[in-house]
Order: sequence, then structure tokens, then C-alpha cells
Amino acid sequence: MKYTDLDKTKAFRFLKALAPYDVRKITAERIKKYYVKEAGSLSFNYAALPLDDMIIDQLQELADEQEVVGKYRELLGGAVANPGEKRLVLHHLTRGRVLDKEVWADGVEKGAFYAQELGKIKKFSEAVRKGEVKGSTGKAFEHVVQIGIGGSDLGPRALCYALSLIPLENGEKKLDARFISNVDPDDACGVLAGLDLETTLFILVSKSGTTLETLTNRDLVFKVMKSAGITAPERHMVAVTSNSSPLASTPGLQAVFFMDDYIGGRYSATSAVGGVILSLTYGFNVFKSILEGAHEEDVCALEPDLRKNGALMDAMAGVYLRNIMGYPYSAVLPYSQALHRLPAHFQQLDMESNGKHVNRFGEKIDYETGPVIFGEPGTNGQHSFYQLLHQGTDVVPMQFIGFRHSQGNLDAEVEGSTSQQKLNANLVAQIVAFACGKEDRVNANKDFEGGRYSSLLAADRLTPFSLGAILAHFENKVMFQGFIWNINSFDQEGVQLGKVLAGKVLRGCEGDEKLAAYARIMGLV
Amino acid sequence: MKYTDLDKTKAFRFLKALAPYDVRKITAERIKKYYVKEAGSLSFNYAALPLDDMIIDQLQELADEQEVVGKYRELLGGAVANPGEKRLVLHHLTRGRVLDKEVWADGVEKGAFYAQELGKIKKFSEAVRKGEVKGSTGKAFEHVVQIGIGGSDLGPRALCYALSLIPLENGEKKLDARFISNVDPDDACGVLAGLDLETTLFILVSKSGTTLETLTNRDLVFKVMKSAGITAPERHMVAVTSNSSPLASTPGLQAVFFMDDYIGGRYSATSAVGGVILSLTYGFNVFKSILEGAHEEDVCALEPDLRKNGALMDAMAGVYLRNIMGYPYSAVLPYSQALHRLPAHFQQLDMESNGKHVNRFGEKIDYETGPVIFGEPGTNGQHSFYQLLHQGTDVVPMQFIGFRHSQGNLDAEVEGSTSQQKLNANLVAQIVAFACGKEDRVNANKDFEGGRYSSLLAADRLTPFSLGAILAHFENKVMFQGFIWNINSFDQEGVQLGKVLAGKVLRGCEGDEKLAAYARIMGLV
Repeated sequence: MKYTDLDKTKAFRFLKALAPYDVRKITAERIKKYYVKEAGSLSFNYAALPLDDMIIDQLQELADEQEVVGKYRELLGGAVANPGEKRLVLHHLTRGRVLDKEVWADGVEKGAFYAQELGKIKKFSEAVRKGEVKGSTGKAFEHVVQIGIGGSDLGPRALCYALSLIPLENGEKKLDARFISNVDPDDACGVLAGLDLETTLFILVSKSGTTLETLTNRDLVFKVMKSAGITAPERHMVAVTSNSSPLASTPGLQAVFFMDDYIGGRYSATSAVGGVILSLTYGFNVFKSILEGAHEEDVCALEPDLRKNGALMDAMAGVYLRNIMGYPYSAVLPYSQALHRLPAHFQQLDMESNGKHVNRFGEKIDYETGPVIFGEPGTNGQHSFYQLLHQGTDVVPMQFIGFRHSQGNLDAEVEGSTSQQKLNANLVAQIVAFACGKEDRVNANKDFEGGRYSSLLAADRLTPFSLGAILAHFENKVMFQGFIWNINSFDQEGVQLGKVLAGKVLRGCEGDEKLAAYARIMGLV
Repeated sequence: MKYTDLDKTKAFRFLKALAPYDVRKITAERIKKYYVKEAGSLSFNYAALPLDDMIIDQLQELADEQEVVGKYRELLGGAVANPGEKRLVLHHLTRGRVLDKEVWADGVEKGAFYAQELGKIKKFSEAVRKGEVKGSTGKAFEHVVQIGIGGSDLGPRALCYALSLIPLENGEKKLDARFISNVDPDDACGVLAGLDLETTLFILVSKSGTTLETLTNRDLVFKVMKSAGITAPERHMVAVTSNSSPLASTPGLQAVFFMDDYIGGRYSATSAVGGVILSLTYGFNVFKSILEGAHEEDVCALEPDLRKNGALMDAMAGVYLRNIMGYPYSAVLPYSQALHRLPAHFQQLDMESNGKHVNRFGEKIDYETGPVIFGEPGTNGQHSFYQLLHQGTDVVPMQFIGFRHSQGNLDAEVEGSTSQQKLNANLVAQIVAFACGKEDRVNANKDFEGGRYSSLLAADRLTPFSLGAILAHFENKVMFQGFIWNINSFDQEGVQLGKVLAGKVLRGCEGDEKLAAYARIMGLV
């Protein structure tokens, strides 16, 4: 494969010469046409983006020139797609094999390795849910608490919250799932308050086994359990970590599940990092469905024609918005309350992956990379920051996500429509209002310029399958954009300096006067 | 008062000619000096912002030229500070009288009016908490559920979550507080699941009494209660609304509390909108403390010297970052898990207030107004989007918030430091890492440019008082910026078009082909 900086590509120069499509002119024909089918009932509509056929052709040229699908295939096949850390990138393999090809690393066939861990998750989660695995005082587990931060928290948490209303088969029960992430002691304090510790199972998640927050919270939890009279707290704990991590050999744990260095934290929701808590909470079959949705979406992403590949179209549109049109942010707007933490996960996924200033060879680059991602569920956001989106002095591109049916079984017709219909009527209305605006020549305060760009990811219902597909759509989008920008989307060197300085502060600032001055404000010295 | 567009002011032209301060050169002296005391233990440190004394002098000139403190005084005194809707702006008066002056409107002395409602809240919340006011089946209330959206949700929710670990006096108990906001039926479905409706009191909040989401959710809740055998569901409900609203005359409600058109939704957390649920959940004295903190902060904001007025310094720095340096976003980063929803509230407060493209006379303006606001608590964010903040291709200004002590009573020393110390060591480390960076000439991927700007709002502890002060700090900051930009921070015309089009969709799209094409995707037609 050839690795070229974006500003050195031919297609990028051509793209700059084309005028963006004016979405104020959007038509019903265009809405029907600018549409890609994805996994299951998922579809990606890009009619309200500033693209026309000429621009899309040129984006295709760019995708081809940067060999993005080829690079994706190489990654799937076991290439060192994370060159900074000299690592393979194998999160797709946790969902199933996309290519008909074995991936070997460190003398292990990794597909078989992940499948084996998946088998362990199935067995363990079933045993816990049946009450066969019990706590140290002989009681079945009813609560699960994940202790992890960043990738060990945001993805699993977003998925866990997203499924709280799904119906389970065979009268199975949901376990109560909670999360402790922050080193702020108030986080653990709040989560543990009122929890029956005898029936609580903790999942300790840290790939390296050295994450400050997670180790500190583990010790805090041990302390609370011991003072509550639980003499063998390790029987209330499992770990998800890598083979080489110090966590793996903690004595007395109920179980240890493995991931490895080829699964980046922010891409780990479909590994044991998300798998253990999702299987414990909802049953293994629910987690399996998430994997199936993600896998089917991974297969869709192999398609080289971007008009038939939703994640790729989304990625290329994002590059156009960022590097041709210059928008530094993008809003993620799920019209589903169950997805209220999905924007926070995508924020991490996107900003930690593509917030980079060097190319994959470690050389500084001269063009913009990942944008700022933010978002809240609709219709809530409509009564909050949409004012700025409609009438602010800047244009903020948007990604809408919607579902034709609700997840829970509660709804009612009020004034001729159900709540779900009202929700989706608002979604539809917003897309058109943003795109077309509405002129008011008399009162500029009531004038809507329009020309606000958005895309729409829609599915029948928020199920484990469609949730997995949506997750993979965004993961693959971010990966494709990384290829276009010629950056490494799989490392995160930017988090190191803060860690080093925090250690210095805890050791008394070691003569650094600036640190000491701020430490004084925060009552540390 | 004189109302001038920012680009027509003298000071703005001078500001453009000055070079920003390079925060890489920050010193301990500067950190000690660039500091404003605010209400109680709250302080605002601006050492890591790109300001030097010359720039600050010029920002003072600008603040004086735009008469921002004078306009604040006028607003407090009952001026029509919301000219678009021809309304007074009186949320400060819900905290206490800042000026020694009565404010009359519609034949009513408004200070007395809000005080009277406050008295009603005290009486009612005490009666509920003592079990004197009961549900329709004779049981005391143990759960309170607020039904509201936007300003009736985000502020009250953020404050309510923020106090979940505070100790209460005299062994008082906390009630269980929940919120339904979204018209998505899954929101109500999730909140009502497993709730004992006999002991639940709903607080219906809508100023106009016509909010689609809130009325729909009220009817949904009525339906659920009736099918659960509660024949008089209105005995489980109170309303917070304006005098003229249809909600005010709903028969059978337990109580009705009033606000009025002079309290904007996003500024209403200290009115009955936040007061009822906070008083029910934590007791009236807790709400009273929030008001005292906010009031003391409102008094601080009267100071014309921005070096002695933290909210004004924050506001002017924001204008400098936005209009001189061109940054289109700002991150709010509370190092306190209890404040996990505060960024969402400030996002609304700021973006809905100042995301405007016309001046207060309704004329289009030629300069940028409010930025995009986003944020998550630290240390969580460090393991998420901080990668982009440190090493992305753009600079994102930041607002840190921190507390010297934790709120709850759980902490432990692990490896020589408590969790709270680790939390604050990280906060301190991040500010310095962002400002100063760290050169790496060998490996550009490990190079940190620095020059990332931030401010720090710090207090001893997250108490009701400091929470109220922080809330008012941001409210007043947003107000001051609106004066600088010469816009109306108190209307929200940008939310109207979407409402109109949503109605059209629910009526079958009325021949609008674009709406119909999207409606088809969402399964509405």
C-alpha cells in the first residue's frame, strides 16, 4: 500500500476546485437516491450533505487513491496497522472473521483466541445468571459493577444503557449494571451507596493492568467490602485484561478474561471489555447479537464503491466537511433516549483516534484531522443547543440517528399521534429545517438561513443487532478517515504527558514551581 | 445605555492589534496573581489564558465601552433586557434582591412574588417530607419525578445529581429523584420501570403549559398510573408553570407553583423550576443554600473592575478567545463526578443564549457569537477526548472546575495518596501540560506543542452554596458576553421552525415532498 498525506493527493486538489452542493435545493428525488443500505435494517442517508455526483465521484477517487478499502483488508489480515506501537489492529476479529483468512501473532491464531474467550464469557455468564457461581457468602449475584475508565467504560456503558428496555427471551431477568470510572472517590461512593455487596460482582477492566484510576478504585472497593464484613472480596471480582498484565495473576478472582494489545481501548466494546458485562446483564445471546450486527457491518465496509458503503460515504463526507469546507466540529444526535451515552462514546472513539498532528510516520502534517464531537439525544437537544445550530454564526454539521419503532412497550396516542411518531416527526422536521431554513424578510430574528448539513442513520428498532451495526459503522468510519488523513488512528500518545506530570504532583511537584502554584490552589501542598 | 455592535467599538479594534500572551511562558508568579476571589471559597484563576495586563486593560475598556455592568444593573432593576419578547429578565431576583430596589411588573412587585412562591415551596416540601401530604392511596411520597424538557430539565437535573452525596442535617432522608424529558416513549418507560407509583410524586414543569414533550409525557404517566389502579393520579402531581398557563388550572393537582415570563427556561434552575424538586429531594434548606451561593455570586458580578469580578473576567476572556483568536468551541471540564451533567446544562445555557446571528435590534451582525460548548468530567475525559485537546490540529480552550475536598465520606490512601489527591493532581497536571507542552525533537508523535488555554474555577468543596455560586458564575458570564456581542441572550427564536415543521409532519406533511421523503424513511407515512 501507498501512504500519502492528504494534501499530496491528486483528488484533494480537484475536490478543492468544486463548489459544494447547496442543500437548500434538496428535493424528494435526492432524498430517495442519496441512500446506502447497511447491515440489517440500517441505512445511511446523505441527501442533506453538501455533496453532488461530481463531488462524490471525486471522493471516490480520493478513497481509491488512498486505498482505504485495501488498507482495511490489510488490517483485517493482520497488518501492523498501528505503526507507532508496532501492533496489529484486530477488534474486527472479536465479532467474527471478515476475511477468509487466519491471523497469527505471537504464535497464536488470534481468531481462535478471541473465540475461546467468547466461549469463556458464555459459560461464565450463564453460570452466574443461573446462580451456579455465587458470592463469598453463598448468595447469587444480582448486581454487576464494571470498574474501568476510557475505553473500558464509555463503550460498554453506552451499549449497556442502550439495551435497558429490550425484551429478553424465556423470561430471563436483567441484572443491575453499574459503572465506576473516575478516580474521584465520589464516583465509587455514589455507585456503592445502597448496593447489596453480598450479591455484587465487580468486573475489573484494564488492558495493561496498570491504570491508576482502576487500581485505585479496586482498592477502594476492597476496603468497602472488607469493612462490610466480606472477608473474601476477590470472590466478588473478575478481571478483563491482557495476558501479561499484573491483574491476570491476582489470586482468588472468580475468573479472568483476556484481550490483548491488538484491541485498542476505544475499539474494545465487542471484546471481553464489553462482552462480560453485557453477557452478565442481558445474557450471552444479547451480546452475540451485538457481535452479529457489528460483523455484518464490517462486511458491508469491504465494498469499495462508496455509494454502496455507508461507513465509507460517512467517512468521506466527514473529510469533505473538515478539509474542504473547514468545519471543526460535528454533532451526533440520536433520537433515542436509550442512546444518551452513545455521543460520549463516539466522542472518545473519534477524538482519541483522529485528534492527531502527525502522520503515520510520525511527521507533522499541514492539514486538519479529527473534529470535536459532541451531542445529546433528540428531542432534548432541540430545547437546548439547537438554537445555535439553527441561528448561530457558524455552521455545525450533524449526524442524526433514528429508529422507526420504540424499544420499550410503553406508548400512547395523544392528540392523534403516538410519542414515537412525535419523536420521529421532530427528527424529520429538524433535518429539513436545518437544510432549507425559512426566509423572513421582515424580522431577521425569525430568519433561518438553512444550509446546515446533516446525515441520517436509520434502523427499524434499537436492537442488539442494530446497536452492534451502528457501533461498527462509526468505528469503520473513523478508521477510513484515519487512512485518508494518513494518520495512526490506533495510538494515543497525547495522554502521556498529563500522566507524567500528575505523578510529579503526587511526589510533591519535584521543584516545578508552576505545578506547585496550581497544586496550592487545589489544596495539595 | 448605548447599544453598539462589537465590531463598531473602539476597544475591539485596539484588541486586534495586540499579540496574545504565550501561555508556554506561564510562571508561578503569574498563577498567584491572575486570580479573582468570588462567592464563598470560589475563585477564578486565569493565568493559563492568553491575556496579559495590556490585553486585560483593553478588555476592561471594552467592558466599560459596552457598559456591561451598567446593563446588568438595569436588568436587575427591571429593564426590558429581552427586547425581542419585550420581557424583563428577573432570574436573579429568585435568589434574593441584588439591588436595593423594588421591581414592579404587571402590577406586582416581583421580588415579593418570587419570595411568596419560595415560601410555598418551603411549606409544601416540608409537608411532603414529613409525610403530611400523601398520595391518593394514603402513602407518603418517597420518589419525585420531574417531567420537563430543556430548561425545565437540564439545570434542575444537573443540580440534583450534583448533590447526591451531601450530608443532610438532623438525620433527614433524601428522596429518590428522577427525570423524564424526552418525547421518546422509552424515556418515560425506563424511568417508570420498577417505580412504586403509589409513593411517587410527579412535578410537571412547563412555563407556557403547552410544551409538546411535557404534555405528552403527562398523559403517558396518567395512563400508566390509571392502569396501575391509581384512580386519582392528579393527587400525585404538582405543576410549576406561569399564571396564564393551561396547566395552572388543571383540577385536582396537589399544588401549583408559579414562575413567570421574566424567567427564561435555561435561567430557571433557581426558580420553582429547580426549587420544588431540590427542596423535595434534599429539604428546603439545601435549596436555600444554593440560592445564597447564587446571590452572593450575583453581588460579586456588580463589580466593574474585571480583575475583581470573576464572571466578567471569564466572559471577557471568552470574547477574546472567540473574536480575536477565532476559537469556535470551549470545553467545560469539572473534576468532580457529581457534576457529570453540569456541562450539558452549561451547553444549553451558553449555546441557546448566545448562539445568535442578529443583534438586539434584530439586525444581522458580522462577527462570531456564542461558541460550541461540550465537556465531560475529569479524569474520565483524560482517557477520552483529551488526546485531541493535547495533540489535535486545533486549539480548544478549556474551563476546568475543581474542589479541594470530596463530597462523600469514602476515600482511601493507595500508594501514598488519596483518590481526591490523585484527582486534583491530575487536574493540576493537565492545566500545566496543556499550557506548556513538552518538546520532543526526536519523535514528533511524542511532541506536545502546548499553548492550550484554560481557566480554573476552584472551591473548597461541592456544597449547595458553592454549586449555586458556580451556576450563577456561568449565568452571569453568558449575560455579560451577550452585552458585549450586543445580542439578546434571553430569547430563542431558533427553536420555532422545527416545531412548525414537526406539526406539519404529524398532519401528514401537507404536500411538502421533502418532509414526506424523510417521513417515509422514518416509517411515518
